[in-house]
Amino acid sequence: MEKKYYDYKEFQADTKSLLSKLPQNRFDTIIGIARGGLTLAHMLSEALDIRNVQTISTQLYDETQKREHITVRDLCSLEESKNILVVDDIADSGETLKTLFNYLTLTYPQAHFETATLFYKKSSVFKPDYWVKEAHSWIEFFWEADFK
Amino acid sequence: MEKKYYDYKEFQADTKSLLSKLPQNRFDTIIGIARGGLTLAHMLSEALDIRNVQTISTQLYDETQKREHITVRDLCSLEESKNILVVDDIADSGETLKTLFNYLTLTYPQAHFETATLFYKKSSVFKPDYWVKEAHSWIEFFWEADFK
Repeated sequence: MEKKYYDYKEFQADTKSLLSKLPQNRFDTIIGIARGGLTLAHMLSEALDIRNVQTISTQLYDETQKREHITVRDLCSLEESKNILVVDDIADSGETLKTLFNYLTLTYPQAHFETATLFYKKSSVFKPDYWVKEAHSWIEFFWEADFK
Repeated sequence: MEKKYYDYKEFQADTKSLLSKLPQNRFDTIIGIARGGLTLAHMLSEALDIRNVQTISTQLYDETQKREHITVRDLCSLEESKNILVVDDIADSGETLKTLFNYLTLTYPQAHFETATLFYKKSSVFKPDYWVKEAHSWIEFFWEADFK
């Protein structure tokens, strides 16, 4: 599959585009999905002036197990949160976002969750509420490539 | 005070410089201090291939109170962590790093903590184990400036 390098300048433009789609003053909390969503979560939290930034991630329970055994590493504390934006770089297969969205909505029923990504693949099993670009190739993000 | 814009290119070079100072294969966990340390934590975790990335932050309990009333928002789960790198953008007054380092070492005595920042001010009350540049002015980081 074609590999596309995604640099900071494009990220900057796309993040601004994503910001223009997000409702103003709705969210009190941002959850960045580690690791891919962390930089985007940081930028959005600065631009939207949201100080409550948290992380969550999935991990394979045992790499010999099947995909059903994705587990959630929940590092959140959402007692004071009402409207939460969950952020990742890409909805690729969509399994991570689907797993986390289902987990979060079941675990924190008092809160309202929406999701945002930079990229979305049409084949994803989960469609984010907000996204910027359709992905047609394998994306190599600058945070994966620029520091090696 | 002079205000210095810190762009992505300089961040990229400085993060590489920081990486060259960090011991290889020592750390199993990175804690990014929210919000300023989040992007650096992301980059370091990718470059060092550390999947366990967490966040912590401080907040003023009440803005009418004095600095002593800094409280810690502990979003960590460090039961499986032994060697932890705590990351922030700058040791400025150093109060945040000092508070968090004291909190973490007391709360998780089984773990070993080291600290890293991009910038360090000589007047800081806390000196990170690893840092890249001395700060002489007020730094406006690209994550604060590029998305507005």
